[in-house]
Amino acid sequence: MIGDPCGIGPEVVVKAWASGQLHALCRPVLIGSAAAVRRAIDQHSLDTRLRVIDAPERMLGRVGTIDIIDSGALDPADITPGADNLACGRATGTWLDEADSLARAGRLGATVMGPISSGAMEMAGVLDRVVQVRPGHSYLLLASGSLRVAHLTDHIALREVSGLITADLIESALRTLDDVLRQWGMASPRIAVAGFNPHAKGAEEDLHMTPGIRRARGAGIDVTGPVSPDTVFRQCIEGRFDIVLAMYHDQGHIAIKTAAFAGNVAVILGPPYPHVTVAHGTAYDIVGRGIADHSMIMNAIVTAGSLAAGHAFPTLH
Amino acid sequence: MIGDPCGIGPEVVVKAWASGQLHALCRPVLIGSAAAVRRAIDQHSLDTRLRVIDAPERMLGRVGTIDIIDSGALDPADITPGADNLACGRATGTWLDEADSLARAGRLGATVMGPISSGAMEMAGVLDRVVQVRPGHSYLLLASGSLRVAHLTDHIALREVSGLITADLIESALRTLDDVLRQWGMASPRIAVAGFNPHAKGAEEDLHMTPGIRRARGAGIDVTGPVSPDTVFRQCIEGRFDIVLAMYHDQGHIAIKTAAFAGNVAVILGPPYPHVTVAHGTAYDIVGRGIADHSMIMNAIVTAGSLAAGHAFPTLH
Repeated sequence: MIGDPCGIGPEVVVKAWASGQLHALCRPVLIGSAAAVRRAIDQHSLDTRLRVIDAPERMLGRVGTIDIIDSGALDPADITPGADNLACGRATGTWLDEADSLARAGRLGATVMGPISSGAMEMAGVLDRVVQVRPGHSYLLLASGSLRVAHLTDHIALREVSGLITADLIESALRTLDDVLRQWGMASPRIAVAGFNPHAKGAEEDLHMTPGIRRARGAGIDVTGPVSPDTVFRQCIEGRFDIVLAMYHDQGHIAIKTAAFAGNVAVILGPPYPHVTVAHGTAYDIVGRGIADHSMIMNAIVTAGSLAAGHAFPTLH
Repeated sequence: MIGDPCGIGPEVVVKAWASGQLHALCRPVLIGSAAAVRRAIDQHSLDTRLRVIDAPERMLGRVGTIDIIDSGALDPADITPGADNLACGRATGTWLDEADSLARAGRLGATVMGPISSGAMEMAGVLDRVVQVRPGHSYLLLASGSLRVAHLTDHIALREVSGLITADLIESALRTLDDVLRQWGMASPRIAVAGFNPHAKGAEEDLHMTPGIRRARGAGIDVTGPVSPDTVFRQCIEGRFDIVLAMYHDQGHIAIKTAAFAGNVAVILGPPYPHVTVAHGTAYDIVGRGIADHSMIMNAIVTAGSLAAGHAFPTLH
């Protein structure tokens, strides 16, 4: 999905296709506005053909050709490069729905969300189309080098997180995580659970986390914890674990963003297919200047392809 | 202060003295058991003289000679290498008190706490002699490369932190931090305050943190925030700020320990002199084997000397 057509999404996707590196790894197809993509091809003088198709099965899948499914959700006259507008917000929501339907029907192996504008989607009242990250239903997974973190909770006031941590939630998150990582090609995922309190010592650990972890272990899951939050991420970087289950947004985000390895990607755990989101925004200030960096969308596409094929997390650059 | 005499403290301090690098940077004097230090010198065949003195003013301060203040708080027969005992715990508490008294009297410029055993000190009922880190009174500062973090709260259940964050506490912590950093030689410290909630958006920020920060700024302090907790530490590493004020233990500890630069040190802000603690424990399992690494005690001593002299944080290795 190209992201908001007014942002750098069209530019970075055409650059990713033009790199010639995608087709060896997957069979990529775009969803979005063909007019926006054609404009990006012309602006950056890329030697690339655009083919509008109506179903993923019709893709040519050839280097030098971009296959795009354009359902006509957006009038090209509504594209206002560098600025939010309601029509583009609404179209973004429609494209996300289209991608989700195709993936749920097994017609796409994975989806990648280009840089959306939450402002434009809010204008159009369709921000709920972005896959929500909700405890018990879906979890945000961030990966950066050998550090991978899934989050039990996401955008929730920190003082409310304690009340959400139950043995049931811990157990079900661990079952989901183990299950999905195996589907994605990790033979026997080693999971660590980060404690909630300093040194993983407190009521949340004793009353809820430890019992939930014990149950998951009883179900055959290779899980360690609760581990002191200030050492568990370094242990994961050093290869002791494959992934850490963090209890709250900043616990994982601070670790990932402070370590700052190459190739951050964000994957949503919960949909029945890998849904990867690009780790940057619409960058309205540089739209049309040809300077947008396509390495992050490349990472997102390469990761989606690798997970869908059961080849686990790829090494990124 | 040599730390617990049954741990690796005596070994790492004699190795630090024997390095010959300390005396160019400061005038170091030991506090503790002369018998424990003599044993370490003999065990590691170091060409070092030991001089027992009764006041820092009597130190020779010469490479090749260790000046030690031994007040007779410990009977050498009570030293049990590699194991906790009550007598050593009690002596450790006494030596910490002696160091604190000398520093408060201006007879020492800074103090360094070697690796203590909290178990032995607990046996002796003197664990309270270790400088407590309490909001409003003292703050733990961790430094690692260009990342420096002071903690508003320390070993407190995470669900209770929200209730402790007040505008008054934020303002007074910022005043203490600014004041101390200037004393230590930073001409105009640039302080960032980490938000409490995801993206620094929540009730704690609106009701308490922002008003406290505004007041501190009104008092002439160069302070930015609340900044999104998942980006502020990376910004500090990249030189945008000199230090981050974190709201809770793991916020700062995850950043410091996940980034893992060379030369971690811990400094307690609050006493009227720099009090630096070594970032490792007694390591009972390797006592007497001659393999203990003295780089962390070197970092602690070099940092204490530099801060006391008003030369700010040194570059460590």
